[in-house]
Amino acid sequence: MDKIKVSIIGATGYVGAELVRGFVSHPAFVITDLVSRSFAGKAFSDVYPVFRGICDVILCDKTPEEVAKDSDLVITALPHGVSSQQVPVLLDAGVRVIDHSGDFRYKDLATYEKSYKLEHPHPELLEEAVYGLPEFYRDKLKSARLVANPGCYPTCSLIALAPFLKADLIDKDSIIIDAISGVSGAGRKSDLAYAFCETDEAFKPYGAVGHRHTTEISEQCSFLSGGKPGDIKVTFTPHLAPFKRGMLATIYVKPSDKFENVSTSAICDIYNEYYKDETFVRALPQGVLPDVKAVAGSNFIEVAGVYDDETSLIKLFSAQDNLGKGAALQAIQSANVMFGLDESLGLNTIVRGV
Amino acid sequence: MDKIKVSIIGATGYVGAELVRGFVSHPAFVITDLVSRSFAGKAFSDVYPVFRGICDVILCDKTPEEVAKDSDLVITALPHGVSSQQVPVLLDAGVRVIDHSGDFRYKDLATYEKSYKLEHPHPELLEEAVYGLPEFYRDKLKSARLVANPGCYPTCSLIALAPFLKADLIDKDSIIIDAISGVSGAGRKSDLAYAFCETDEAFKPYGAVGHRHTTEISEQCSFLSGGKPGDIKVTFTPHLAPFKRGMLATIYVKPSDKFENVSTSAICDIYNEYYKDETFVRALPQGVLPDVKAVAGSNFIEVAGVYDDETSLIKLFSAQDNLGKGAALQAIQSANVMFGLDESLGLNTIVRGV
Amino acid sequence: MDKIKVSIIGATGYVGAELVRGFVSHPAFVITDLVSRSFAGKAFSDVYPVFRGICDVILCDKTPEEVAKDSDLVITALPHGVSSQQVPVLLDAGVRVIDHSGDFRYKDLATYEKSYKLEHPHPELLEEAVYGLPEFYRDKLKSARLVANPGCYPTCSLIALAPFLKADLIDKDSIIIDAISGVSGAGRKSDLAYAFCETDEAFKPYGAVGHRHTTEISEQCSFLSGGKPGDIKVTFTPHLAPFKRGMLATIYVKPSDKFENVSTSAICDIYNEYYKDETFVRALPQGVLPDVKAVAGSNFIEVAGVYDDETSLIKLFSAQDNLGKGAALQAIQSANVMFGLDESLGLNTIVRGV
Amino acid sequence: MDKIKVSIIGATGYVGAELVRGFVSHPAFVITDLVSRSFAGKAFSDVYPVFRGICDVILCDKTPEEVAKDSDLVITALPHGVSSQQVPVLLDAGVRVIDHSGDFRYKDLATYEKSYKLEHPHPELLEEAVYGLPEFYRDKLKSARLVANPGCYPTCSLIALAPFLKADLIDKDSIIIDAISGVSGAGRKSDLAYAFCETDEAFKPYGAVGHRHTTEISEQCSFLSGGKPGDIKVTFTPHLAPFKRGMLATIYVKPSDKFENVSTSAICDIYNEYYKDETFVRALPQGVLPDVKAVAGSNFIEVAGVYDDETSLIKLFSAQDNLGKGAALQAIQSANVMFGLDESLGLNTIVRGV
Repeated sequence: MDKIKVSIIGATGYVGAELVRGFVSHPAFVITDLVSRSFAGKAFSDVYPVFRGICDVILCDKTPEEVAKDSDLVITALPHGVSSQQVPVLLDAGVRVIDHSGDFRYKDLATYEKSYKLEHPHPELLEEAVYGLPEFYRDKLKSARLVANPGCYPTCSLIALAPFLKADLIDKDSIIIDAISGVSGAGRKSDLAYAFCETDEAFKPYGAVGHRHTTEISEQCSFLSGGKPGDIKVTFTPHLAPFKRGMLATIYVKPSDKFENVSTSAICDIYNEYYKDETFVRALPQGVLPDVKAVAGSNFIEVAGVYDDETSLIKLFSAQDNLGKGAALQAIQSANVMFGLDESLGLNTIVRGV
Repeated sequence: MDKIKVSIIGATGYVGAELVRGFVSHPAFVITDLVSRSFAGKAFSDVYPVFRGICDVILCDKTPEEVAKDSDLVITALPHGVSSQQVPVLLDAGVRVIDHSGDFRYKDLATYEKSYKLEHPHPELLEEAVYGLPEFYRDKLKSARLVANPGCYPTCSLIALAPFLKADLIDKDSIIIDAISGVSGAGRKSDLAYAFCETDEAFKPYGAVGHRHTTEISEQCSFLSGGKPGDIKVTFTPHLAPFKRGMLATIYVKPSDKFENVSTSAICDIYNEYYKDETFVRALPQGVLPDVKAVAGSNFIEVAGVYDDETSLIKLFSAQDNLGKGAALQAIQSANVMFGLDESLGLNTIVRGV
Repeated sequence: MDKIKVSIIGATGYVGAELVRGFVSHPAFVITDLVSRSFAGKAFSDVYPVFRGICDVILCDKTPEEVAKDSDLVITALPHGVSSQQVPVLLDAGVRVIDHSGDFRYKDLATYEKSYKLEHPHPELLEEAVYGLPEFYRDKLKSARLVANPGCYPTCSLIALAPFLKADLIDKDSIIIDAISGVSGAGRKSDLAYAFCETDEAFKPYGAVGHRHTTEISEQCSFLSGGKPGDIKVTFTPHLAPFKRGMLATIYVKPSDKFENVSTSAICDIYNEYYKDETFVRALPQGVLPDVKAVAGSNFIEVAGVYDDETSLIKLFSAQDNLGKGAALQAIQSANVMFGLDESLGLNTIVRGV
Repeated sequence: MDKIKVSIIGATGYVGAELVRGFVSHPAFVITDLVSRSFAGKAFSDVYPVFRGICDVILCDKTPEEVAKDSDLVITALPHGVSSQQVPVLLDAGVRVIDHSGDFRYKDLATYEKSYKLEHPHPELLEEAVYGLPEFYRDKLKSARLVANPGCYPTCSLIALAPFLKADLIDKDSIIIDAISGVSGAGRKSDLAYAFCETDEAFKPYGAVGHRHTTEISEQCSFLSGGKPGDIKVTFTPHLAPFKRGMLATIYVKPSDKFENVSTSAICDIYNEYYKDETFVRALPQGVLPDVKAVAGSNFIEVAGVYDDETSLIKLFSAQDNLGKGAALQAIQSANVMFGLDESLGLNTIVRGV
């Protein structure tokens, strides 16, 4: 069978590099164009020397139309506001697209425009775009023309919350998400704030109110609970931690009246049952808690929960690699679904080990 | 004036080493005995080579009685259960004591015994012991014979919560404390879990329910709000982060009915007013959030808060050095108070810089 | 074609885990037994949670005879002195073996026994054992029954030195190797010296004289230059650096009289020519220097050199992953050769990316 | 006694911050002006929040003339080429100066101009400037108007080499210095190369030939051996290591004919004897090797040496904090000498501990 041709626009950011890592060993895809305005003319492996001899594709600065010509799938890893300009061009050229920005993740236009402080040039695409969380939207992904790859914090939060939201087991007004991300989440850039001497041995919250991922999580929580945008508003606080890759969410929720006999063991059972057929979601055994180390470099996400009977709160935990399940590798999982492949093809051996 | 003689029992753990760092440059104290069962006979600087030429005191394994003979103050950095045995001996010998374990931090015996799974051999000392948070118990510290130095998580949490608890501005049933600690909090020991290759690039929750500091925080919150043990029960989750020193708490609380016109600016004002005379508590300007880096190696603690008007929750943040304000340097602050010295003597220039 | 059955004895050390990472995605091999005395009965993924769902093989404590029964290849990652006991049993049982210890790396028995302070129980195997550096001993590996996988420092040093030794371009008495290793080189163990708080922000030499790899490098240098054991003695100093994986050697040598018109450009040409057909050796373009980051998580090794015309010395540089080309992945490269496979099968896409 | 007024020009780089750390707790100096063109108008503690409440001096952009007016000592932490412009102005205004650039470190003008690719605007100051290594130039420092604070690598190298050069115990043509520095050595700047995700888990050589510190070391080695510029040329290779602060040099030299009965023990004795009266040089006991961790945050430097009798080479090791003894704290040591103070005043308790 001919390989599926995939191109990446914005190939030299950390998400782009992780996409290359995933596709370069993928048995069903072949990389055609790697687009990078900053590094056009250089080899990808000049920018990421670890890929010397593995991916020496010459970076180009083709237009979206040109890229579309020789691709079956284009993955855009572009800033928001730029994606909303380029993605429609790609779609018009007849190619399928997975976009990594926030531009197509919302169904509610007003929420997007308020969150991103931008007017959307193509709001008609919001309805069509499929939110690229295969665990929840697998069927729609199969035929999707445009997939909005979820934010890293949203993926981490939603995988942890879904079983409880879907079964109405938690109080919808009570969701508090406290999350941390590794430094690669800030992207590949020259910025003193992310310099080694400023970041190492540091730890801090940021975006303490109004981080964009808050509204993305809220809208998806609303959908998962069977409601409409605006039904659920979550409290969300991100933090920056001194390691390269990884993300952990600690979530506090109140059990609803429907959750009878709530206990740590019951929470554990719910996760096990809900995710029993999912390759990439690990419902951990009771007594084991998620650890960033256990998912680093992979598309896996771990979930666990406990019940604090002193305060009658449920704590949910989830850990993923922010560039893996939180970004690039999840996009490959969606790509597998879009093209009718085994969903875990090329993904289930990608890990980092020690 | 003659210097005050201070001895440290358990001098070679990380808390012990930080005590030495603080006292060795302190203008009013002089170190007499450094007790270490494991390293007796060696120089302190053989265990911590960075102190070569700075503190070459030979470690001894004197009994508490012997240590008491030539000390005005003894600081015990011992495991719980051991402190409760040795501290009474020291007190009987007429010396004043600051203890770093959990053994004398509680007023409620039952809570201690349940939390630490130990029978207390000297419950009569619980009432007398002063909880060593100078910002709240300064007057009692002046004449205290026995000071229970607070846990690191409790200090970080209580400094953030106190102004709101004292003024009844938050819902007492709503307190959720999500906190992270650097690896030095686990102590100086050979344990695979804290090996470099296991800890670096990792991040995880631990003690997800029932961490001992939970009950310590709860009891002190009860007192700060004018109540009695058991009045307040907090939700608390600690996490381990890959850096040596530092601690950050992110706290979620609901404003009470008494908190009129709650806003980020109002929270900021409350902190500024409440801590305006405190040397070591930094109420940050609005828009600035605490960062572990900004307190590393010091006795300072930073606090800030925001109001999330989408979900009507207050978020409070505090950052300290777990070995500094969270342990050894706070003990020195208390020692200054106990001996009638300027509370910041020897402390306000101890920082780490870059 | 049936897959080749490979078993690993000593599967839960860091080398073992990297072997599992490599073989689990290898198209031609299948893992049968993973032997671990310490963790027998547990799943491999209980010890390395990152492998949950990827390698859940139950660890066993089979004897070498039992392991041999169902394996085509056994890889031993055991301490020296233990390997020399178990490997002969495996060979007697008819299985091929790649050993990771120092026990079969020497041709000269006396050098081994002096370096390792052990009497060798099976010196007759030293002659037969093939030194597992495919770049130099490819032909012998094809039919080898016993392969001694090289030490990490030796691989890094020899790849850098070989082109010059073989062509007699450097003064054999002048070789100085200054090298650093990441912490994983010390193995997976509970040892205060490798605790996070003791290792992070630290850097030091160790084994300043007489590190075992010195004699291994010397013997192989002697062979590469066409001589016999003892002909060359190198100066070697290892250092410990605060990162998990990676190794860098900086080598100082004097050009011999045979090296006419020595220059940085000439050194570059020699590397390019010598390694032009080698998949895993990257002769870097002039002006680029090896970086641990560029080889992390891979079987690649980078080399470069410069000529310092002020002091008439050549500096050679090489970087590899100490667990990759320096240990486990090189063993897989040798395994490919042993079983007549494409030498890079399963290896040329294993990288770590960001 | 009135305090000595010190000002710092270039106060917000990492060297500047370490100078502030040192002077803020110094009993004999008081900081007057902190000059920063980039941050003028802000508090120093806005740039370095760890200094909030400790040093809240408002940064200014005064001219050198203005700074000189109210200072007894000015320390310049400026780029080379800028120092050579501003320092003469300061001297003309009658103030004493310690300069951190390379502009006044050389006696030989041609070597400076070749190394720095600059024409020196005030070559007449080269002769007057005192090289600020108190251990070697203490007497000249006492009355110096202009002190050239040594480079970090030169300090680390020269302290290790001096006893052997002075006594003619090593072959002058044989000196090879292999050294590593923490990331703070690159300064405080927005540069992708020093971003956390690019630097963590990385290690590489740089400036493989012709690093500027090479000629500085060579000239000083020539002087220490009683010769003139050009007599000695060293081989020097710097490397970048993933930690914030610290530096280690591993030096290879051949013993000269004058070094009778060379042995590790003899080397140890030479260090002990030579540095027996030096507060900040630690000649380590035989069997102990320098470690960056043991000097971090201090003005101490550790030295040790071994003799490799297999190859007849001496290995010397030295470790210091690149910002401490390698820069700012050494400048304070020189300042103490310049103003007739106890040389260790304010310095011998500055350490980092854990």
